[in-house]
Amino acid sequence: MPDDVPSGFTVPPGWAGDVHEFDPHATPGFDGGKKKGEKHLLACDDSLADLQERLFAAHHGAASGGRSVLLVVQGMDTSGKGGIMRHVVGAVDPQGISITAFKAPTEEEKQHDFLWRIRPHVPAAGQIGVFDRSHYEDVLIHRVHGWADAEEIERRYAAINAFEKEITDSGVTIVKVMLHLSYAEQGERLMERLERPDKHWKFNPGDIDERGYWSAYMDAYSKALSATSTPHAPWVVVPADRKWYARIAVQQLLLQALGEIDPQWPAADFDVAEQTARLRETFASQG
Amino acid sequence: MPDDVPSGFTVPPGWAGDVHEFDPHATPGFDGGKKKGEKHLLACDDSLADLQERLFAAHHGAASGGRSVLLVVQGMDTSGKGGIMRHVVGAVDPQGISITAFKAPTEEEKQHDFLWRIRPHVPAAGQIGVFDRSHYEDVLIHRVHGWADAEEIERRYAAINAFEKEITDSGVTIVKVMLHLSYAEQGERLMERLERPDKHWKFNPGDIDERGYWSAYMDAYSKALSATSTPHAPWVVVPADRKWYARIAVQQLLLQALGEIDPQWPAADFDVAEQTARLRETFASQG
Repeated sequence: MPDDVPSGFTVPPGWAGDVHEFDPHATPGFDGGKKKGEKHLLACDDSLADLQERLFAAHHGAASGGRSVLLVVQGMDTSGKGGIMRHVVGAVDPQGISITAFKAPTEEEKQHDFLWRIRPHVPAAGQIGVFDRSHYEDVLIHRVHGWADAEEIERRYAAINAFEKEITDSGVTIVKVMLHLSYAEQGERLMERLERPDKHWKFNPGDIDERGYWSAYMDAYSKALSATSTPHAPWVVVPADRKWYARIAVQQLLLQALGEIDPQWPAADFDVAEQTARLRETFASQG
Repeated sequence: MPDDVPSGFTVPPGWAGDVHEFDPHATPGFDGGKKKGEKHLLACDDSLADLQERLFAAHHGAASGGRSVLLVVQGMDTSGKGGIMRHVVGAVDPQGISITAFKAPTEEEKQHDFLWRIRPHVPAAGQIGVFDRSHYEDVLIHRVHGWADAEEIERRYAAINAFEKEITDSGVTIVKVMLHLSYAEQGERLMERLERPDKHWKFNPGDIDERGYWSAYMDAYSKALSATSTPHAPWVVVPADRKWYARIAVQQLLLQALGEIDPQWPAADFDVAEQTARLRETFASQG
């Protein structure tokens, strides 16, 4: 694995700043361009796949105390969430992954508190869970459009912090990523969707409406990151104007999370010599 | 894409034979060895990923008449089901895939008819669903161990055929694969799991017990394939003694299923010129 450690910008607990402090075009921790970045991604795929398999082997089926990883990916339209799923998450065994894309809530979901639909998707022991959007929509788009008032948003921050504390205490390592895109780059990416007929299905006129609320969104992100970057679940702002960089940074965050868990191949819970002898006896038969 | 079409052996409706007719070591439709096979797999990855994306673009969210693909993978222990998931299914966008591994039923599942736990996992429009084991366990292991009598097994065949007819009529293309392993090759693969400490977690002494029922399993497969290889959902016996072959054969079956659906990029449901003009207006702002 190369020496570079593309890291994004970790938001320290207690931070109360503005996301504009972070440059969407930067490549923190990585000294190189697109070609080197793409090589880096492929070079680390095997390490990620290996760690994922060890996590699965060591922890799946654990009744309690089992470990898992939850990657939460937030970002504006076209910030590259889908590319993270395809190129980073897609490199590991799909049997060990569960991706949930949180869309606008259904009528049934709306009749429950906002965390109701989230909890069933917290990854089981041994698994890597991925949220494409998440419970953070309830403090982002809801703040921007005034669907919840300031007091209710504060209640939700507290509920999120308590929820995330509880699941980290139970063995889930949470990696929270904001894919940080610039307004100009979003314009280019939306234009590409309009120019290419094979991308039209990804475009929705409402995307331009939402773009009109850009500064309100940046403000909502700043406030949400300030309120919910905790010691147990810190936010990482990942510059996303360069897709290749965002991918290697998220890959590295997953490698670190898994590396800290340091899952080991479990010891056999049977007598290997005895089972080898039993198996050998079956070789005389033709089945 | 290479000219070879690794096809496995399709079981014609009305067949009433014995799975021993099929050679687990054969490579039907493919003229080449391991090296060429591995190249073939990689060479076809892009086609599969492209067709999957088109399926998703064309059909996801369809209220009715939407198309999806269901790959059912059955096979004895060590037949390579996991490798199919990693190397064939794993090459497409994980956002368009849902894999379900059916284990021994829970207490709650046992209180329902055998299809009760299956139906929720039928893939939604636009998706590729994959079953790692399936409703066929209820006519395989259940027959072998006598957990269901002959009459009940017959009822289940009929229920399976009706279920599969109904879901194919609703737009699901079903690809049913038996990974066909030889008794000798299973012995080698189990031995490898015992020899390698990093494979011990995959071994269970019960695997040797089940191996003792090999011929009863082959008989159960023969009867199940005879009873449920239908025009709407035929079985394909895929020789699995060579892992590389089984992978390219299953990949090819998915390519064919998707190719028959022939999903097209959907036309824009908005005025492209109008939206382009709207978007261009936003470029003057700084966000």
